[in-house]
Amino acid sequence: MDSEGRPLTSGAIDIHTHIVPASFPAYAGRHANARWPSMEPAHDCHHCNVMIAGKVFRTVSDHSWSIERRLEVMEACRVDRQVLSPMPELLSYWLEPEDARVMARHVNDTIATMVRDGKGRFSGLGMVPLQDPDMAACELELLMRSGGFHGVEIGTNVNGVSIADKRFAPFFEVAEASGAAIFVHALHPAGTERLIGPPTMPALALFGCETSTAIVSLMMAGVIARHRGLRIAFSHGGGVFGLVLPRVMHGWNAIPAMRETVKESPVTQARRLYYDTLVYHRGTLAFLIERFGVTQLCVGTDHPFTIEERDPVGAIEALGLDTGQRDLLLSGNARRFLGAG
Amino acid sequence: MDSEGRPLTSGAIDIHTHIVPASFPAYAGRHANARWPSMEPAHDCHHCNVMIAGKVFRTVSDHSWSIERRLEVMEACRVDRQVLSPMPELLSYWLEPEDARVMARHVNDTIATMVRDGKGRFSGLGMVPLQDPDMAACELELLMRSGGFHGVEIGTNVNGVSIADKRFAPFFEVAEASGAAIFVHALHPAGTERLIGPPTMPALALFGCETSTAIVSLMMAGVIARHRGLRIAFSHGGGVFGLVLPRVMHGWNAIPAMRETVKESPVTQARRLYYDTLVYHRGTLAFLIERFGVTQLCVGTDHPFTIEERDPVGAIEALGLDTGQRDLLLSGNARRFLGAG
Repeated sequence: MDSEGRPLTSGAIDIHTHIVPASFPAYAGRHANARWPSMEPAHDCHHCNVMIAGKVFRTVSDHSWSIERRLEVMEACRVDRQVLSPMPELLSYWLEPEDARVMARHVNDTIATMVRDGKGRFSGLGMVPLQDPDMAACELELLMRSGGFHGVEIGTNVNGVSIADKRFAPFFEVAEASGAAIFVHALHPAGTERLIGPPTMPALALFGCETSTAIVSLMMAGVIARHRGLRIAFSHGGGVFGLVLPRVMHGWNAIPAMRETVKESPVTQARRLYYDTLVYHRGTLAFLIERFGVTQLCVGTDHPFTIEERDPVGAIEALGLDTGQRDLLLSGNARRFLGAG
Repeated sequence: MDSEGRPLTSGAIDIHTHIVPASFPAYAGRHANARWPSMEPAHDCHHCNVMIAGKVFRTVSDHSWSIERRLEVMEACRVDRQVLSPMPELLSYWLEPEDARVMARHVNDTIATMVRDGKGRFSGLGMVPLQDPDMAACELELLMRSGGFHGVEIGTNVNGVSIADKRFAPFFEVAEASGAAIFVHALHPAGTERLIGPPTMPALALFGCETSTAIVSLMMAGVIARHRGLRIAFSHGGGVFGLVLPRVMHGWNAIPAMRETVKESPVTQARRLYYDTLVYHRGTLAFLIERFGVTQLCVGTDHPFTIEERDPVGAIEALGLDTGQRDLLLSGNARRFLGAG
């Protein structure tokens, strides 16, 4: 028991945590890739600046690459297992495909090493160069055969093109066939030019819209209906999709062209997808459970970034669910999403 | 009592209904304004096609301009009073200002006539040429002095520029000073290039994001804090703002730059704004009441368009609130928003 009388382990699996490698190889490709990242020292020995295009993209702490530092946090917040995925800005869709593949393999090697050295407390979601869908499909197959990964993280868009665009069909085919879990994370959201506020605002106010748009597009393009075996999760509680869904559902009921486009109801599709619990608000979490089903939400924290959720297990315990439902949210759903039994 | 034993009048005031004039004057300006609308006959005598740039923008029914047709619907759905505002595509921000002023006055005259002839069952929200903020401020003053209007409808953006941009400061100053109620309606949402699906999808899946972005921007730009007397309502339940708010609130708590930008908490600001009930889902409506307060939501239906809510009063009655709270939602909040005592 901890000082507040709570059990020290909850069995919780956190599907939404990010890593940054402690260093990047120097760029060795043949292109003018100004956005190849590098690491520089920051204000103290526990932090580094991720440099992209000559500017500090983000100052990150050593939690980003240190197993020991992460284990300390996991103990403090009663998370048994972290699923490691790349900091989204590392997805590198804006590099030439062959360069992005080099970056992907470096990041994936970092994740594989952390999983191997992590005393059984970590699982891996890698990355693939989705700007070249065939290369991405090939890399995904290799990654899944390597045995070290449950699947990959992808962005909501690839250089402004929705992941539901038909060009990405080969990727989703391999994802389903290889049993890869797909974790979709908001990336470079649409609409920033209409959003006023400090630089943190797009992540706060637009990530949710971006994620919802990706979900709706995957539904309307038939990707969700076509790949019934695909296990796919969406970050930040699916963003604002919980509030978009009733309106889309109303349209689907009212407008024949909607039903002709997609035969299965949006609500039915929505209840096959996974979502994390990263919503920072008890009433919102309860609302999402009601909307999507208690079987579809998994713990997510955004560790180790500034806005991480620091008491993910407490947020679920506070819902007053029965033990079985609580354990689904803490770990059972995540195991199903990851394909880990 | 009706056939289901419900009282025939509920006192309900519907703040979200649209009108289209039965006809438009021919374009008489000096510019090449290909987007000046006109009306053409449609498939039967009860419908017209609104033509914009040589194409059918929307086929609309005679409910769009006929008092008698609207009164029939109001009786059927137990709405006592409709607040009339322009179909958003008539806002004409994309015309030259002097042309938009001609259009605004034509639409406003239509609304004023419907209010005057409407047996006390209608109230008016007009429109102003917001692409010229000084002209818009001047038109708003004239409109409010005319005595026929409670305020105006505006879009969430003006040709892609957020309404929270400082160029629109003169408009919001006059809005507060003149006591005009401002109804903000989603318009030409951001992100359509990333949304896959039939042509109805942007209104279904992106209007909510667009509205949320406008609200957050109005908060972060200080417009809400600066104009404490401003009465401002947002369409479609504030869009997805109910799910964006906890994330913005978390950022405001975690990131000093957020609190420096806006001193009053986003939740406190949110509970001063008005929202309509047009969300098509009981759990969502209950969620919004919990988020924003039972004093801040007003009936909205989108009459007379395809996706209108057909039982707005029943949706509120089904919430199981006490009589006082129910009457706030049905009419009390709307009267306060409109400044109608």
